[in-house]
This record gives sequence, structure tokens and C-alpha cells, in this order.
Amino acid sequence: MVEKKDNKLWGGAFSKQPRADVIDYCAGFDAKSFAALDSFLLPYDLQVNEAHAEMLCGQGILTQRELSELKAALNEARKKGVSLEGFEDVHSAVEHFLTQRTPAGAKIHSGRSRNDQVATDTRLYLKDHAQRWVKDLAALIGQLERTAATHAKTAMPGYSHHRTAVPYTYGKWLQAYAEAFKRDVQAFQQWIELYDVCPLGACAGFGTHFPIAPAITAKKLGFAKPFSNTLDAVQQRGEAEAAYVFCIVRAMNHASQLAETFMVLSMPGMELFKLPEEFCTGSSVMPHKKNPDFLEATKAKASLAQASLLQLTDATKNAFTGYNRDSQWTKSALFRAQVECEPMPKLMADFICGVVPNNEKLAALCEPLDATARAEKLAMEKGIPFRLAKQEIEKQLKEADTKRKGTKI
Amino acid sequence: MVEKKDNKLWGGAFSKQPRADVIDYCAGFDAKSFAALDSFLLPYDLQVNEAHAEMLCGQGILTQRELSELKAALNEARKKGVSLEGFEDVHSAVEHFLTQRTPAGAKIHSGRSRNDQVATDTRLYLKDHAQRWVKDLAALIGQLERTAATHAKTAMPGYSHHRTAVPYTYGKWLQAYAEAFKRDVQAFQQWIELYDVCPLGACAGFGTHFPIAPAITAKKLGFAKPFSNTLDAVQQRGEAEAAYVFCIVRAMNHASQLAETFMVLSMPGMELFKLPEEFCTGSSVMPHKKNPDFLEATKAKASLAQASLLQLTDATKNAFTGYNRDSQWTKSALFRAQVECEPMPKLMADFICGVVPNNEKLAALCEPLDATARAEKLAMEKGIPFRLAKQEIEKQLKEADTKRKGTKI
Amino acid sequence: MVEKKDNKLWGGAFSKQPRADVIDYCAGFDAKSFAALDSFLLPYDLQVNEAHAEMLCGQGILTQRELSELKAALNEARKKGVSLEGFEDVHSAVEHFLTQRTPAGAKIHSGRSRNDQVATDTRLYLKDHAQRWVKDLAALIGQLERTAATHAKTAMPGYSHHRTAVPYTYGKWLQAYAEAFKRDVQAFQQWIELYDVCPLGACAGFGTHFPIAPAITAKKLGFAKPFSNTLDAVQQRGEAEAAYVFCIVRAMNHASQLAETFMVLSMPGMELFKLPEEFCTGSSVMPHKKNPDFLEATKAKASLAQASLLQLTDATKNAFTGYNRDSQWTKSALFRAQVECEPMPKLMADFICGVVPNNEKLAALCEPLDATARAEKLAMEKGIPFRLAKQEIEKQLKEADTKRKGTKI
Amino acid sequence: MVEKKDNKLWGGAFSKQPRADVIDYCAGFDAKSFAALDSFLLPYDLQVNEAHAEMLCGQGILTQRELSELKAALNEARKKGVSLEGFEDVHSAVEHFLTQRTPAGAKIHSGRSRNDQVATDTRLYLKDHAQRWVKDLAALIGQLERTAATHAKTAMPGYSHHRTAVPYTYGKWLQAYAEAFKRDVQAFQQWIELYDVCPLGACAGFGTHFPIAPAITAKKLGFAKPFSNTLDAVQQRGEAEAAYVFCIVRAMNHASQLAETFMVLSMPGMELFKLPEEFCTGSSVMPHKKNPDFLEATKAKASLAQASLLQLTDATKNAFTGYNRDSQWTKSALFRAQVECEPMPKLMADFICGVVPNNEKLAALCEPLDATARAEKLAMEKGIPFRLAKQEIEKQLKEADTKRKGTKI
Repeated sequence: MVEKKDNKLWGGAFSKQPRADVIDYCAGFDAKSFAALDSFLLPYDLQVNEAHAEMLCGQGILTQRELSELKAALNEARKKGVSLEGFEDVHSAVEHFLTQRTPAGAKIHSGRSRNDQVATDTRLYLKDHAQRWVKDLAALIGQLERTAATHAKTAMPGYSHHRTAVPYTYGKWLQAYAEAFKRDVQAFQQWIELYDVCPLGACAGFGTHFPIAPAITAKKLGFAKPFSNTLDAVQQRGEAEAAYVFCIVRAMNHASQLAETFMVLSMPGMELFKLPEEFCTGSSVMPHKKNPDFLEATKAKASLAQASLLQLTDATKNAFTGYNRDSQWTKSALFRAQVECEPMPKLMADFICGVVPNNEKLAALCEPLDATARAEKLAMEKGIPFRLAKQEIEKQLKEADTKRKGTKI
Repeated sequence: MVEKKDNKLWGGAFSKQPRADVIDYCAGFDAKSFAALDSFLLPYDLQVNEAHAEMLCGQGILTQRELSELKAALNEARKKGVSLEGFEDVHSAVEHFLTQRTPAGAKIHSGRSRNDQVATDTRLYLKDHAQRWVKDLAALIGQLERTAATHAKTAMPGYSHHRTAVPYTYGKWLQAYAEAFKRDVQAFQQWIELYDVCPLGACAGFGTHFPIAPAITAKKLGFAKPFSNTLDAVQQRGEAEAAYVFCIVRAMNHASQLAETFMVLSMPGMELFKLPEEFCTGSSVMPHKKNPDFLEATKAKASLAQASLLQLTDATKNAFTGYNRDSQWTKSALFRAQVECEPMPKLMADFICGVVPNNEKLAALCEPLDATARAEKLAMEKGIPFRLAKQEIEKQLKEADTKRKGTKI
Repeated sequence: MVEKKDNKLWGGAFSKQPRADVIDYCAGFDAKSFAALDSFLLPYDLQVNEAHAEMLCGQGILTQRELSELKAALNEARKKGVSLEGFEDVHSAVEHFLTQRTPAGAKIHSGRSRNDQVATDTRLYLKDHAQRWVKDLAALIGQLERTAATHAKTAMPGYSHHRTAVPYTYGKWLQAYAEAFKRDVQAFQQWIELYDVCPLGACAGFGTHFPIAPAITAKKLGFAKPFSNTLDAVQQRGEAEAAYVFCIVRAMNHASQLAETFMVLSMPGMELFKLPEEFCTGSSVMPHKKNPDFLEATKAKASLAQASLLQLTDATKNAFTGYNRDSQWTKSALFRAQVECEPMPKLMADFICGVVPNNEKLAALCEPLDATARAEKLAMEKGIPFRLAKQEIEKQLKEADTKRKGTKI
Repeated sequence: MVEKKDNKLWGGAFSKQPRADVIDYCAGFDAKSFAALDSFLLPYDLQVNEAHAEMLCGQGILTQRELSELKAALNEARKKGVSLEGFEDVHSAVEHFLTQRTPAGAKIHSGRSRNDQVATDTRLYLKDHAQRWVKDLAALIGQLERTAATHAKTAMPGYSHHRTAVPYTYGKWLQAYAEAFKRDVQAFQQWIELYDVCPLGACAGFGTHFPIAPAITAKKLGFAKPFSNTLDAVQQRGEAEAAYVFCIVRAMNHASQLAETFMVLSMPGMELFKLPEEFCTGSSVMPHKKNPDFLEATKAKASLAQASLLQLTDATKNAFTGYNRDSQWTKSALFRAQVECEPMPKLMADFICGVVPNNEKLAALCEPLDATARAEKLAMEKGIPFRLAKQEIEKQLKEADTKRKGTKI
């Protein structure tokens, strides 16, 4: 989304203009609509229809000719898109699209239900996007490690309780987040491992009398295996989604920590880091402002992902057996979290790239932080317990403090 | 949203077709997009612009002619709408719209910021919709009380722990929910009382050098009073929203209890109530199904409202002072909860109207539930403690149970 | 809780020792147990027993002598306490205590159930503690306003987006939170108004055949009125609790904002405020550390209150009609939030008292923040739109920035 | 906890008394206190102390004699326990215990901080308990599969939308939950895989000057490997806990579904299943009541686990870098969820064992559910699309319904 040129309310003091993708990430859905939820499932629904039709043909339920006609219609759908307007969901819309083009469209719903269809569409969506997260987070980790290597010796205070603690380095600090994101990558991979199972053929949860072959559709769709219990395959809708969004929450929580820390350490009066201007915005009132919107948006999105997670864990909690329509609202929770958060890894990598540490100020803050090291050395040199050594150093600090205050007055 | 006639996947066994507003309520945003969030604020932003312009003119910052031109442009905006496309938010879009029509458009941003504007727009939106909830819930209460009066003597078991407990009536049972919704009405009214305060003029949180008159804009916009501290007026964004959504959560929780109870008591094998068919849907696979989608949707929306509440309480938690862009994401949480839940009271009233109790089955279930009354009577007649009387009745029940089992074998 | 003197792991560099109540607030329940939940209800259960016994006597169900014996036994219970060990809940324990002392103890359960008892006990607890919050928050507001008056002219930058925005004052900044806490006071008062209703006499939700007089017990217990529907009186357990904890969340959210802001603005490298040492702790390793544990604990408790709120809104969501034992878990959510958060207002007031602003550093940060004022003045002087004036100032800032950078190289 | 015999308020009509462990599970912490949180860490803290002392000795920081004295003191601590009273946490209490017994106690804190200690204690606790969940859930799955095998042919309706859908079997239904719990087992195993990393030696997050050997302590404590970045090892407190509690949420959600379904299907008026009496309780007022408290408690605990999860995901969200004391409150969220939920698998297995299906009623409900099968057969026989066949069957159902209604009048 680009702001109309002649009505830009801020930015006169910027040397670099904010990037379009950053503005888009920060804009949320204030000025643009959020697409119909089933539109996210459309490509996967077409894929599922094709695999199902091929299987039905292999099982003698569709003729070869009917299959050809259906595949042609599906290809047309892929190219032209399928309008959801006036339909209950993507499954009805696609079936209608097919039926308009070939009488075989009316036979494709044999041996399946919308329950196993939506479960399969969603599973494919999640698998696909989990793989993207793995890739995007890996790229972010790569960037963090490259910048960490460059700054292996750039002094930076280590903090605890929001207080400078001991001398550390900017490189090690960045590496800490690289390690955290590595667990997030592993978590997405574990998700794929756990949910690489195809629900197609479970129908409404109780199978079918049609002689279908779930193992074949599972294979065609690239799943490791088909479901093993029909009811389990459809009645836990929301479970895989919750587990997936939990992975997003993990990654967003780590990102939000980077956001919070850079936000604070770049504050006027502190200025340990200079943030890239193309990730900031200005004010409609205050000419001098450079606002770290990207960081704020990242924090807000971590909060949004958390709320989505809650809605999803709630979806299977205390649920009566079988498919319940309540579970339909898992879609908005899932897609909102995914769509709002997916640009994070790429943007964060570029952001990190553009951050400029203020070496002098960072080093100056590290200077007085050698108290622990002094105590450790004292303990080792004198062979006394660390506790005693620390007490000795504390006494010295207190005396120095008293002296300083004395001088002031 | 109406299903295309020639592709209806279910419904052949229904004598009444589902109502369009019920289908819409149950459809969520699967097949339609969710409007740009700022579009919900547009009418209120125009109102705020008008009040601000009038005040600026009264203070000598705008001329009478400039005011006339602005009011004409605002009227045009009201009629034609204002496109948000290509803008950061509704405020920029409206300002651009005005500036295109009159040079005075460029002066209207004097003595205000987008921070106080969005706070004021949102406050007006919330006040307006709180009043609608009060009205709609009052109508629902009215319906509950009318049906309760009709069924004052219709026997229905009182339940505890999901077990029939003592004889009760359908009328008293409905009245219990009427009482609960009355508290929800009061809660919305308390919200209005607490937040009937106008933030306009607080600017970015620190006031302005323009000689504006916040008391005047507050009055023009129908608020009880203007803000008393500029910073407080804008930095708590999310607080009023959270308090408002908490009111929605209250009402939805009560509605979800009606939903859950009717759902269970109308189950095949139980059938104490027959649900109105125009609130049900069918299955794409099972011809005999009549699904209480309205009740399921209501339960799901209670869960959605709860997740929105969490996102909103989270928005002000641990927030650094001043406006933070994180707070922008309060919009989606607010509007999603409002839009999904607002039809509930009207639909629930109509639903209640259409429910048909099965008097015979309800009465039959009440029959064996006189044990407490027997114990109470025994206690009063013999002047013994209730505990002893109850033990005596329990002994009788156990003996009867043993006898029955004995007969069986 | 006082740390054993000879094993204090930190604090050698402190001139003031942390206060015992601060340490206790920050310690949570790491080293002490959390009391049996029903112990919080004990005093209220005794009160309810007394009112119920008096009413039973007035209704002729207990004799005057039985009443006297029961009152004597209740007085004994008040003095000695009642052990909960080996009982299901406080109600059984108290009844057992009474029955051991007088045969009338066995008759006191006439015309009541544990369902209305626990609802009444809890309601009394909540009303009592809501009044304490009102009082404690009022004291905090008083302190904020006194300190605000002292610092009416102490310069402090106004912040937005974590960036210094315009010159503001420490006094106005404190006042912003005073205003926020005033709404919290009002919210607790509204809670009392909404829930000043006595559930006693509703029994298990369906009344009783005993000729009890709920209006009399309501009055004896100080409630504004008795319940109007028996079922409503007991089946919404969790609702009043959720509404109450929402009030706590409101206050804790405001407190957590003070905490976060003081935390950041007192960081080494920033040091705009010096925090009172008696609210800080030290490190077992780093001799120079002074950690703002009080502020961190306050932030954590805001998060805990939020989680409790979720558990409580969840307790009535989708609940089947009537009392359900699920609702028993509302106690832990309620009491944890209450016990952890109740010391906040008093401690925060003392904390604010002890904070020392660094006037020089605060003033220095305000200096460059006159850009908005310059633009506003330019607009007023030249009679040009604010937007144009702002663009002119932005141009000047950019030129100055370029020049400064030029000089550096 | 056993109810005092002479004050049992209910149960006279029961042939089997509730089991003590069931009563305990259902009692929560109403009548007993929740132990000091650090007491859960004590055994692990002793283990960590021993490993650390051995490593210090191996590195020449402690003498062999000092090590022997420390090990003797640790053994004494294991036998006698260590009182937490008067200490900040378990680490201070243990160190004090050691120091009282040997001067070497004062040297054991060399090369470590309470930050890496608590992280390591917690990691050991979690690993240990994750393994227990794996074992207990496996036993539950075993029971579900055995009962499923017994009831492979016991008719039971398959449900969707709370409506009977198609004929299914009790065996397959139980198997559906066995499959769900299998994923929970896998999830706990994946947790172990992801978090089998030892934080000891990371100290306050920035390492130490003492020549310690983290790889050696990691091995001694049974971890797969030591941390790779000191800061990451301690600053993500709450992450492993959240991931662990998410595993509990998964299992509790599945259990809560069993609970909800058995609750509803055993209701008076339905009675498809008879629940084991030793898992039920009675009423203090209604002599005939048999309440499924175990099922209600399970549902409530699923809700409690969800609230704990929220508190834990919140603990790392938007956190400033480094250890923050906020993270201390992760303990209560973790231990409450663990302690309340851990008995579930064993109790649920025994519960399943005791459930008696009412074969006749179940079969009777299945009878009218052959509509889908009829449509599928019609489609296959006539070679017409399933949609058409379904419409034909729907027509027949509607006619039958009209006819039946006609007869009634």
C-alpha cells in the first residue's frame, strides 16, 4: 500500500523513505479488507479435488473421460480463480464451478464430505506454510549469525532486570536470538512430522460405503500417511491449527524481544543503536519524530498471535464428540495470525542488517561493569569463597558511592 | 448471503428454509471479506471533523467561509463515501478528500493529532454501539419474559452437574437468563457512564499551542465532558475497548449457555425441545440431519469474543508511556467481536420464540425428582434435622435400587 | 518474610535495605505455601451461618435456645478458627464444628444448599475486598496528585512511540495515571452496584420447601437486595468473579505502565529517575546491581491477573444450565489474582514517593523538542495551514541533520 | 483427603464409595494448601548442586575433601529435606543448609548464578515429568484400545453437530481418542527432544571467569548437550515451560472431550452410558443425585491449563533482553497446571474401565441413521451422482415426516 503522494502527512525530515513492505506490515487491515477466509484454501481445495477425482477414477467410480473433463475444469479454475460470492464455502463454490463445466462435477462428491475436505485443505495449507516458516526463519538466522560474526567484538553491556550487568558483545547478543529462532525452526519441523497425515476419505468422520482408497489420495497429495481412525481425522479440527499457531507464537515472542530491546536501546537519551530509517515512520504533528513502527507492529502481532492461540486451544476444549460447527471459527484465528505474522522473518533480517550500533556509547556503558569479574578474580587469587569476595567488592562500591555523594554536596 | 439456488448442498428434508440472517450469522467470513477496519470509523470521523471545524471557526482559526466549504465537503463525503484505498487510515483519507474540495481542508488539522482523532472516533463508535446493545438486549429480555410467562407452569427438570435435580419450570428457567441479560444491560450502561468523555483536543497527548476549546467539541459531539488530562486521553487506547468487549463477553457467555443447554436437551434420544428449523442447516452427505448451527455459532462467537478481550487487555498491559503504534491492533480485536456478535440478541429472541418444548417428556423427567421435597417434608413433620431426613430418604432410594437390580437378574 | 541474616546473598552495596513488605510482594509463593482456598471464605461463611440461623429462628424453624447455642459456637469458631483438614470444603468444616458443639448444628442446613452458601460467601468476600481496592486506590491517587503538584513544573519529555515528542512535565505525567486509577475506582464501585445482591436462599438453584425469608438474610448481611430468580442466583458462578478480576486487571494494567516506564527511564545510560533503594534487590553474583524487582513483579502480576481473568470468563462460557462443579476452579483464579495484587496500591504510592527525578537530564532531553510548537507558531503567524508549516520545519531539520553529518566526516 | 466419617454430607444412596484419589482430584486446593513452589524444585536443586560440586572438584576449584563434605551434606538434605522458611528461594535455602554443615558450602556458588540454577532445576523437573506423561498417557491409550477391542461391535451413533449422524461403534469411538492421545505422547517426546539441553554454567547469562566445564555437568545430569549461547540459556525462561504446558493442554483438551461426551450421553433422559459410581459424588440436599464430578473437574482443569499456557506465553512476549524477575511467576503457572492435571491419565483409564454402555439404547438410536448409506447405495446402483441420490432420499424423509405429523393431528 502506498500513501498517495500529495497527501503524505509526514516524512519531510527523512533521508530514506519507508519501504512499501514495511508500511504494509505496519498498516494491518486498517485501510484494506481482509480476504474471505476460504480464499486462502482455494488452491489446496483444487489440489484435493484433483487427487480425489484421480482416485475415484482408479477405483472405477469415475470414467477416464469424466476425469479428463474434471481435470480440465480444475485447470480452468486454477487460471481464472473461483468466485466465492453467494456460496457457503470454497467447497460448494468449487463443486458448482465444476458442475457448470461437466456433468461429472455432480459425481465428484462421492465418498467424501465437506468435513474431510476442509480438514485436508487446511492440513495442506499448514504444511505448505510451515515449510515457508522453516525457510524464512533459516534466512533470518543466517542474517543474525552473519551480523553476529561482524560484531563478534563490538562491546555491549549484558543486561539483567533492565540493568547493565557485565560486559558482553553485540555479536553474542545477536547469536542468542539466532539460537532461539533455531528452536522455532525445529518446532515447525516437529509440527510437520506430527501432522503429516491425510484426513481425506474420513468423510463426515465415519467413513463411506463407496470403495475409496485413502492411502492413494494421501500419497498423491504428498502426505506421509493416511488417517488411521475416521472420527479422529475430522473431530480434532483446531488441534493442528493450535499447534501451528503455537509455533508462530514462539517465533513472534522471540521477534518481539528483539523489537522491545532495540526500541528501548535506541531511545533518545540512550541511543545505543541507530535504527534504519526505512523501517520508521514520522508524525502528522511532530516534524522531528522518527517512530520505530516496525518494532511496535511486531510486538502487537506477537500479542495477536497469542490471542489467536487462545481461540484455537479453546476450539477443541470441552468439545462434544464429532464435527461441530463451532470449529469453523478456527479459520479466522489461524489466517489472521498467519497473514499478519508471515512477513516478520524477512523484514526482521533486513532490519537487523540496517541497525547501526553506536560503538562508543556501548563501550562506555560496559566500563563500570567489571565488579563480578573483580570478585571472581579476588576469589580465585586469595582462594576464598566467591561470596566473601563479592562482599568485599560490594563494600568498596558502597564506599565509592558515599564518597561521590559527599563530593556532590 | 444467499446460497446459489442450483448448488444447494443440503436442505431437501426441511419444511422451512433457514433464514438469510441466520445463514449470514453462521457463515462468518468464510466466503466474504472483512471490511477495512477504518471503514467502521468513517461516519464518526466525519462527525468529529465537523465538530472540530465548527470549534476552530468559533475560536477564529477558520473563517466562516472556510467552515461552510468544509461542511459542504463533509456532506458530500457522507453521501458518496470516502475511499480508503491508498491511504494509511481514515483520517488521512478524509483530510485528502476535504483538501481536494477546498483549500480549508489543509487547515483542519490545526490543533489536533491523529491520536486524539482516532480516540474520539472510537469512543463515538463504542458509545453508539453500546446503546444498540442496551436496546437489543432489552428486546431479548422482553422476549424471554414473554415466553417465560407463557410457560410459567410448563414442567422442566432443574439440573445440576448435568443431572436432573428437582422439578422446576421452563418459565422460571427462561427467567433465569432474562435476569442474567439484565446485568449485561446494566454493564453496558455503566460502560457508557464511565467512558462518556471526549478525548478531542488532547492532540498527541500533550495538548497544542492552538487556542482550541475541548469543552465545546465535547458538547457538540454529545459527550458528558471533555478529557481532564491530555496524556491520559490518548495513552490508554485499548482500555475502553477492553471494557466494552468485556460487556460483549458477558452477554455472549449468557447466550452461549442458552445455546449449550438447548443443544443438549434437543439431542436425538432426549428431544425435550424441538428447535425452529429456520435456525438449522442440513448436511451435504446425511439427508436426515438438522444441525443447530445457530447455537454452535453462538458458542464459537463467545469464544471469539473472549480471545478479543485477551488481545485488548494485553494492549495496555506493560505499555511504555504515551501513544504506541501497538495499540492500532486493538481495532481488529474490537471490530471482529462487535461485528460477529451484534446480531445475537435479535436472533436469540426469535430463536426462543420458535422453540417448542415437549411437555410430556419434560414432565416425565420431573416425576422421580421429589426426593429433596420428601426429605424436607420429613424433616419438618418429624422436627428432625434435614441431614437425618435426607439419610432416611437415601436409604429408601438405595433399597429400591437394589430391589430393581435384583428383579432384573 | 525475612531472609536469614547469615545467608543474605546480596545487598552489600545498598544504603537502605529492601522493605519486608516489598520482599514479600516480590517473593510470590516460591518459599511459602498458598493457603487452602476455602480459608479465605471462612470469616464470611461464619457470618452467613449466623444470619441464616437468625432467620431460621425468626421463621420458627430453630428455637431461640438453638439459636443461642449456634451463636455461641460461631463465636468460638471466630476466635479459635476452624480447621479445614479432612473436609471437602469450608461449609462442611463449619457445619461439623457446630454439630460437635450443639445438636442444633444438625438443623442449620435447613433451607439452604452449599451452592447458595458458597455464592453468598464469595459475594461477601468480593464486596469487602472491592471496598478495600476503592480505598487503597484512592490513597494511591492522593499520593500521585501530591507528587504531581510538587512537580508541576519539573520538565519531562512527553513520549510517543518510545520517542521523545514534546516538552511535558513530570507533574502532568503523574496526573495522567491518577486519572486512569480514578476510572479503576469507579469500576470497582460499579461492580459493587451491580453485584450487591444476596444469593442466600436460592439453595441448589431451585428454592426450598422450608419457609425461609431471603429478604431478611439479605438485609442482615448488608446486601442491597435478595436474588430475584433462584436459578440465576447460583448458576452464574464465575460471572461476578470475572467482573471483579477485570477490575483488578484494569488497575494492574495501569500500574504495569508506571512500572514499565520507570523501569526504562531509570536504566543506566538514561537515568532520568533514581528509584528508591528499599524497592530494589541485589544480585547473588554481580556486586553493583540494583534491580527494580518491585516494578518487575508488578508487570508479572498484571500478566497473572490477565490469565486469571481468562480462566474466569471461561468458567461460564458454554456452560450447561445449573450448578456445575467446573465452577469450583474459579476460586483459585480469583484468590491468586487478589492475593498477589492487593498490596500494589499501597506499595506503588510509597514507591512514587521515593522516586527522585534527575531534573537536569530531564530538562536536557526536552530542549530539542520544540519542533511542533515552532510549526504551530509558524502556522498561526503566517496564517498558513499547519501542514505547510510542518513541512517547512521538517525541511529545516533535515538540512541541519545533513550539515551535522557533513561536519562529522 | 478423606471426608471425616461422621460429617459426610452425602452418599447414602451409593453402593460404591468414591475413591480417595478421585475425591482428591476433584477437591483441588479448596481445603488444603498449595505447597511452596520451590519445594517442587528441591530434589532437582540437590541433583544440580551435586553435579556442580563434582565438576568444580574436577576443575580443581574444590578439593576432594570439600567435595566429600558437600556430598555428605547433600545426602543429609535428601533424607531430612530442606526447609524453605525464611529464604528467598530453594537455592538460598540449600546453600545455607550446606554452609551450616561445611565451610565448602560457601564455595559452591563459584561459577554459577541463581539464573542458570533455576533454569537447570526447572529443565530437569520438566524432563522428568514429561517422561511420566509419556508413560501415563501410554497406559491410558492401552486401556482405551483394550476397551475398544472389547466393544468393536457395540453399536453407537456417530455424532456431528450434537446430532446422531450415522451408525458407528463404541469401539471405534474410543479408538478415536486413543489416536488423539498418541499425538499427545509424541508431542511430549518432541518436547524432550527439543529441550534436552543443560543451561548450567551460563551463570547470569554471560558466563563466568571460573574455569568451569558445562559439558561435564550436562553429561552428569543426563542432558543430551550443554547450552550453546550463555544468554539464550537463561533469558528464555518461560519458553520451555509454555511448550510443556501446551503439551498438557493438548492432553487435557482430549480428555475434556471424553468428559463432555460421557457427561451428556449419561444424562437422565438419555442414559446411553452408566458411569462408575466410585467416580461420582452426591448432593448435600438431593438424596437421589449421582454427580459426575470427575468429568466436571477434568473439564475445569483443561480450562485451568489453558489459562496457565496464556500466562506462560505471555512471560517471554515483548520481554527486554536478559533475565527479568517477571519470569519468576512462570513457576506458579507451571506447577498449578502440572499438579492439577497429572492424575488425569490414570484416573481416566480407570474411569473408562468402569463405564457400562447401554447396548439396547445405543442400538435403538442407530436404527434410523441409514439415510447416507441408502443414498450411497442408490448412487452406486443407479450410477447417478451422489447429490441426486441424496435429494431423492431427502424427499422420502420429508414425506414420511409430513405423514407422521398428519397422523398426530
